[in-house]
Amino acid sequence: MIVDCHGHYTTAPKPLQDFRDAQIAALGDGSPGPSPDGIRISDDQIRESLENAQLKFQRERGTDLTIFSPRASAMAHHIGTEATSMAWTRACNDLIARVCALYPQNFVGVCQLPQSPGAPPAHSTRELERCVNELGFVGCNLNPDPSGGHWTSPPLTDKHWYPLYEKMVELDVPAMVHVSSSCNANFHATGAHYLNADTTAFMQFLTGDLFKDFPTLRFVIPHGGGAVPYHWGRYRGLAQDMKRPPLTELLLHNVFFDTCVYHQPGIDLLAKVIPVDNIIFGSEMVGAVRGVDPETGHNYDDTKRYIDALPLSDADKRKIFSENAARVYPRLAPKLAQAAATEKPAGAAR
Amino acid sequence: MIVDCHGHYTTAPKPLQDFRDAQIAALGDGSPGPSPDGIRISDDQIRESLENAQLKFQRERGTDLTIFSPRASAMAHHIGTEATSMAWTRACNDLIARVCALYPQNFVGVCQLPQSPGAPPAHSTRELERCVNELGFVGCNLNPDPSGGHWTSPPLTDKHWYPLYEKMVELDVPAMVHVSSSCNANFHATGAHYLNADTTAFMQFLTGDLFKDFPTLRFVIPHGGGAVPYHWGRYRGLAQDMKRPPLTELLLHNVFFDTCVYHQPGIDLLAKVIPVDNIIFGSEMVGAVRGVDPETGHNYDDTKRYIDALPLSDADKRKIFSENAARVYPRLAPKLAQAAATEKPAGAAR
Repeated sequence: MIVDCHGHYTTAPKPLQDFRDAQIAALGDGSPGPSPDGIRISDDQIRESLENAQLKFQRERGTDLTIFSPRASAMAHHIGTEATSMAWTRACNDLIARVCALYPQNFVGVCQLPQSPGAPPAHSTRELERCVNELGFVGCNLNPDPSGGHWTSPPLTDKHWYPLYEKMVELDVPAMVHVSSSCNANFHATGAHYLNADTTAFMQFLTGDLFKDFPTLRFVIPHGGGAVPYHWGRYRGLAQDMKRPPLTELLLHNVFFDTCVYHQPGIDLLAKVIPVDNIIFGSEMVGAVRGVDPETGHNYDDTKRYIDALPLSDADKRKIFSENAARVYPRLAPKLAQAAATEKPAGAAR
Repeated sequence: MIVDCHGHYTTAPKPLQDFRDAQIAALGDGSPGPSPDGIRISDDQIRESLENAQLKFQRERGTDLTIFSPRASAMAHHIGTEATSMAWTRACNDLIARVCALYPQNFVGVCQLPQSPGAPPAHSTRELERCVNELGFVGCNLNPDPSGGHWTSPPLTDKHWYPLYEKMVELDVPAMVHVSSSCNANFHATGAHYLNADTTAFMQFLTGDLFKDFPTLRFVIPHGGGAVPYHWGRYRGLAQDMKRPPLTELLLHNVFFDTCVYHQPGIDLLAKVIPVDNIIFGSEMVGAVRGVDPETGHNYDDTKRYIDALPLSDADKRKIFSENAARVYPRLAPKLAQAAATEKPAGAAR
């Protein structure tokens, strides 16, 4: 059983983007925005959008279940008002729910939140509750910078965010820390803003006492943790200089890294410095990088190959490929049990 | 001969900080600021500030010449006006010049620039010229975000910066891309803002055509390039998706990475993915991390040990330890020639 914790619906049928375009146009001319209820997407359109993309890659690469969320760069919480964000968020989450209903073996949902610059995170708890309790989602994507590259919100360790964390703890769901597109010309989204946010969030967790207040709160830091594993010595040293506890004790019950690092040396480093219990398989496919690496002949984002090549035991690889995900996303349990029951005997015997 | 391209005067005698404190206090109460001419620091105070810090570490670690600049986190270009920044910058650069005059074998200067949010980079050219032509400096530190974490300047590839680049090219000096302290609560300076700036600058260079306009312009990206080498596959893939030339061709005649990465696995990765011609030895000492790594028993920032342990030829290590610095900082040449002439015969015979 191979669970990919990081997939976005980057191939959603066109009517979704048409709705968004109309919504943005309405912001400009002051007319009432369109209603998400008007989006017409057939089941066949959904199937078509996935069959030659995510599903094809699952089959080709040998992964099973993708933890699936709306396209991250399109969340764009900085556009419009809180109401804009709410309507767009519901539309995106509802479409993810339809994907998961059509392909229950292949996808399980993670939701976008209706964040907006300056809006209290408490306003996101209802949508989180709806997605978890009504749509069967197992987590959320939390944007630490809803301003889109201006970084106007307080750090993630600030009490500003606590109402959302209380709901996450109550529902027992983790958040992936994931920014969206950038409206700051300095930051290319997938080449700078994403990685910067990962690095920034980790350092916030290192300096704050968030996990004293929420011992069971869990975050996945995507893109292999931004710059963090490469600078693990720096972080160990910074924590030490600040008289903080060792990182394993301070953070690693609560913070996990995915494997969206697109070359073997990067994954080798990740597996060398980060404890195997804190690494969760992810590919970000179909996402930031879509090409084939001429050095390997395989897609850059076929990250399973890099894990396969690691000098780790089968037991450790099982942690990375599914067991850690099961711990971090406990609501995956029924899915995994169902999959285990239908898995071929060879797998069951392991 | 071992050249450390990244050292800051983090141990400067107290009167320098007293001046800065008085300058900041004057901003608050509207009184005229102090003059840098009033700073009284004796040669002995300078010697004391270095003997048990940078000089001791040079001796202990076996490094020779440090490319030395004012304390990066104290540049704080966001404080006060352009005039504030100019006075502070001159004070800091003049002190670096005194260090270099007292210890010409051990230090060569790189200057801080009198940047200020919104001020045209052209206003920094005179101080650069003064430092290079009158004080014998070999480069500058360029802050891509003088706002201190709000990122209000245009990207480094924007024509906004061109007048400064023209002067750098004319003087044949490189810049290290180096932000300062952060006044945005999201960004811890040494644990997030520094690394984010490194990552951001690289991606700006990747997407822009700066080096078509300035084929001989050179930048050192410090802290091992931020997140970049760890995500080298991502960057190769992003460039490929954008139909940009391969990174070696697009960037690597102009962009270099230092070795301020504080653990062996990080340096191993750096040396594996970045061509050896683009790696320049640096330690950032005495700087961001001051402790001893309990895993090795040595200072985290004793980065020479990590390079020594790399499975590279002596010729490649010479590139990292001095030859690349000589290429990137051509004004080092007289220093290096002088050092070579006084080096012991064993070294000369190599």
